[in-house]
Amino acid sequence: MSTNQNRIEAFDAVDLIHAKRDRGELSTPQIDWLIDAYTRGYVGDEQMAAMTMAIFLNGMNRREIKDLTMAMLNSGERMSFAGLGKPTTDKHSTGGVGDKITLPLMPLVAVFGAAVPQLSGRGLGHTGGTLDKLESIPGWRAHLTNEEMFAQLQEFGGVICAAGGGLAPADGKLYALRDITGTVEAIPLIASSIMSKKIAEGTGALVLDVKFGSGAFLKDIDRSRELARTMVALGEDAGVATSALLTNMNVPLGRAIGNANEVRESVEVLAGGGPADVVELTVALAQEMLALVGIVDVDVASALTDGRAMDKWREVIRAQGGDPDAPLPVARETHVVTAERDGVLVEQQALPFGIGAWRLGAGRARKQDPVQHAAGIDLHAKPGDTVRAGQPLFTLSADEPERFARALEAVEGAYRIGDPGEPVLDGGPLIAERIGR
Amino acid sequence: MSTNQNRIEAFDAVDLIHAKRDRGELSTPQIDWLIDAYTRGYVGDEQMAAMTMAIFLNGMNRREIKDLTMAMLNSGERMSFAGLGKPTTDKHSTGGVGDKITLPLMPLVAVFGAAVPQLSGRGLGHTGGTLDKLESIPGWRAHLTNEEMFAQLQEFGGVICAAGGGLAPADGKLYALRDITGTVEAIPLIASSIMSKKIAEGTGALVLDVKFGSGAFLKDIDRSRELARTMVALGEDAGVATSALLTNMNVPLGRAIGNANEVRESVEVLAGGGPADVVELTVALAQEMLALVGIVDVDVASALTDGRAMDKWREVIRAQGGDPDAPLPVARETHVVTAERDGVLVEQQALPFGIGAWRLGAGRARKQDPVQHAAGIDLHAKPGDTVRAGQPLFTLSADEPERFARALEAVEGAYRIGDPGEPVLDGGPLIAERIGR
Repeated sequence: MSTNQNRIEAFDAVDLIHAKRDRGELSTPQIDWLIDAYTRGYVGDEQMAAMTMAIFLNGMNRREIKDLTMAMLNSGERMSFAGLGKPTTDKHSTGGVGDKITLPLMPLVAVFGAAVPQLSGRGLGHTGGTLDKLESIPGWRAHLTNEEMFAQLQEFGGVICAAGGGLAPADGKLYALRDITGTVEAIPLIASSIMSKKIAEGTGALVLDVKFGSGAFLKDIDRSRELARTMVALGEDAGVATSALLTNMNVPLGRAIGNANEVRESVEVLAGGGPADVVELTVALAQEMLALVGIVDVDVASALTDGRAMDKWREVIRAQGGDPDAPLPVARETHVVTAERDGVLVEQQALPFGIGAWRLGAGRARKQDPVQHAAGIDLHAKPGDTVRAGQPLFTLSADEPERFARALEAVEGAYRIGDPGEPVLDGGPLIAERIGR
Repeated sequence: MSTNQNRIEAFDAVDLIHAKRDRGELSTPQIDWLIDAYTRGYVGDEQMAAMTMAIFLNGMNRREIKDLTMAMLNSGERMSFAGLGKPTTDKHSTGGVGDKITLPLMPLVAVFGAAVPQLSGRGLGHTGGTLDKLESIPGWRAHLTNEEMFAQLQEFGGVICAAGGGLAPADGKLYALRDITGTVEAIPLIASSIMSKKIAEGTGALVLDVKFGSGAFLKDIDRSRELARTMVALGEDAGVATSALLTNMNVPLGRAIGNANEVRESVEVLAGGGPADVVELTVALAQEMLALVGIVDVDVASALTDGRAMDKWREVIRAQGGDPDAPLPVARETHVVTAERDGVLVEQQALPFGIGAWRLGAGRARKQDPVQHAAGIDLHAKPGDTVRAGQPLFTLSADEPERFARALEAVEGAYRIGDPGEPVLDGGPLIAERIGR
């Protein structure tokens, strides 16, 4: 048979799409070929879009998900911290409203002698991005070379920086496609996307903060549990000690939603204060990260109150050009919403407040858009708090006052003041389950 | 809200994909927008690919299919034969192996005073195309202007020509996409594709020859019936008198599979001979086409034996530049397969013989490829026939003898000589059901 191509292709994309469309299983060589051929452009975006929708609707078994993860991992470079002389441990959150945990967590873990190689991303939609938050600190740089990253981990034990394009490039291409073709929320695709990048990053241990509830990617705890189990198995198979916490995202985490205000709240936690839920989750995740690398019987919480975590934070921020003492940006305009009656705040839904902050300018609608670092929402009451008529409930901040109307629209009906004794609709405890060995 | 676009888009493609992905229904304005935005390129191929896979797997209800058909119809021009002074009636086949019925059918129907505006296509894969077959007649032209088409219908009552790009351009774009993204066999997409073009063509009546069986697009008679019912309802809703026959495509139709050999067989039928199955289906479809425009109580079969249909064929072929007396092309090489034993031919599977003829050069793998008009397969025995060891069973014809090996591979195991009295595996009667008023 003659061919116009120089390369003989092992498979045909349409045959593979048919197989998955008809609820079949893709073999290891088929998945390897698909990801390789997609990365080099032989399989087109339209073919991959049909395939990802078929995967979304018909699923993949554990072996297929593992193969997909490894194929994406193998599409790029793989970092190694073998020469670092200390254990590496990292955390990944599936994303939530007010989730700034990485900021206090990284220095807290580093205090105890583990290294935290946190490669982070930017926000899209209503969930914020760690890099966007840190960039509100004057001078702070998100982009480091691999050598700078290694040196900083060696000296200080912690780094938060942008992932280079060399890690799992297939995932970068596939994620952008899924975003515009409506296949983001598929467990096989989420799990392989997260884990291919985290395995490529070279961390020795990984704790996954898998969110459930109205403000999470996957609303339902059963689907979050399935995602967590899938990712833990992928990590363990790849030799990364992995565990997961299933955590509640029905209510915003902490009191700050935005960028600069989330840094401010993180610094409060590092100073021994801050909202109870942020402290609880930071400590729990730090214990989990340390336990995975064999550091147990340490009093993690004490490092928040005795200044060690704050000292580490200042070192690491300075190492990346940031000035930990510089004032953080403040918005030009604010709008305060007050309580209409006496009572108890019984409801405060994460998703509408996330969308509200996004509309104020804290998030971006398109990848290329900038974020406004001072925009966001500060919550003055949390579910269960007693409030008085006229008391401030939350403050909207924005550089452009015309943004307030659409933000207020977003949060309308998302909070409610009830009578004392009425049940508080917070969806239960913050940390619901642990998954792992 | 500011926007960079000059046009304000009514919907967001990702929202619509999510709706169909999650088993929702698309509204009429959503479907209208989707097809319009796809035709003008605002909705990308990758988004439409995800949508068509979601439609494939989650389906569409009757209202959505109707809206999709009308949106594709409205993407282009619509022809009208109102000024013709005679009723128009057409036939569409979902495609099969050896299906040359359009060739004898068009002149046969025209004999009785109805006009047949047959806009046809080319073959792709194992199913042949009417235009490819007719182009084996020296001088014959597939491309006519609308004026030439109208004039020919006026004078002779029949035309077979290429559909212009102005009819349902959305369908042309969508069909090409479905072909490379594995979503060809979805009933809502097949039905809207066929019916948008046929309604745009402007015929007053339409008979659908919906195939089922191993050599058909949809193997299963239940799915073929669903497709037929869907298309009949679409036609009636659009004011086109529509009916369908469900016909058996387990066995090749007639004895010729290819191009020139199918023309030769069609001429035999027009001369009052030819294989019984081709004659049976041609007459049944002609009666159905005529009945839909009120022409009943005519002896259709007599026009095949008394020369009227042949005279009409010669007129129409000449009108399009063809020479009905010119010798048809003959292949440079032939290869005869003989019976290995005495017995009865109990099996002859349509699909493998279609693929065999395709591999000989009768069909095309890519749209831009030419077909070899003399390539194909001639069957010397049909299921149920008694055969003798050494008797020719079928002949392969090709211009390039190196094609024989892969064609023989295709038909291996696709026919079987059994003992007298063994059941013949032909899948039952040729015409299984009629659907329509």
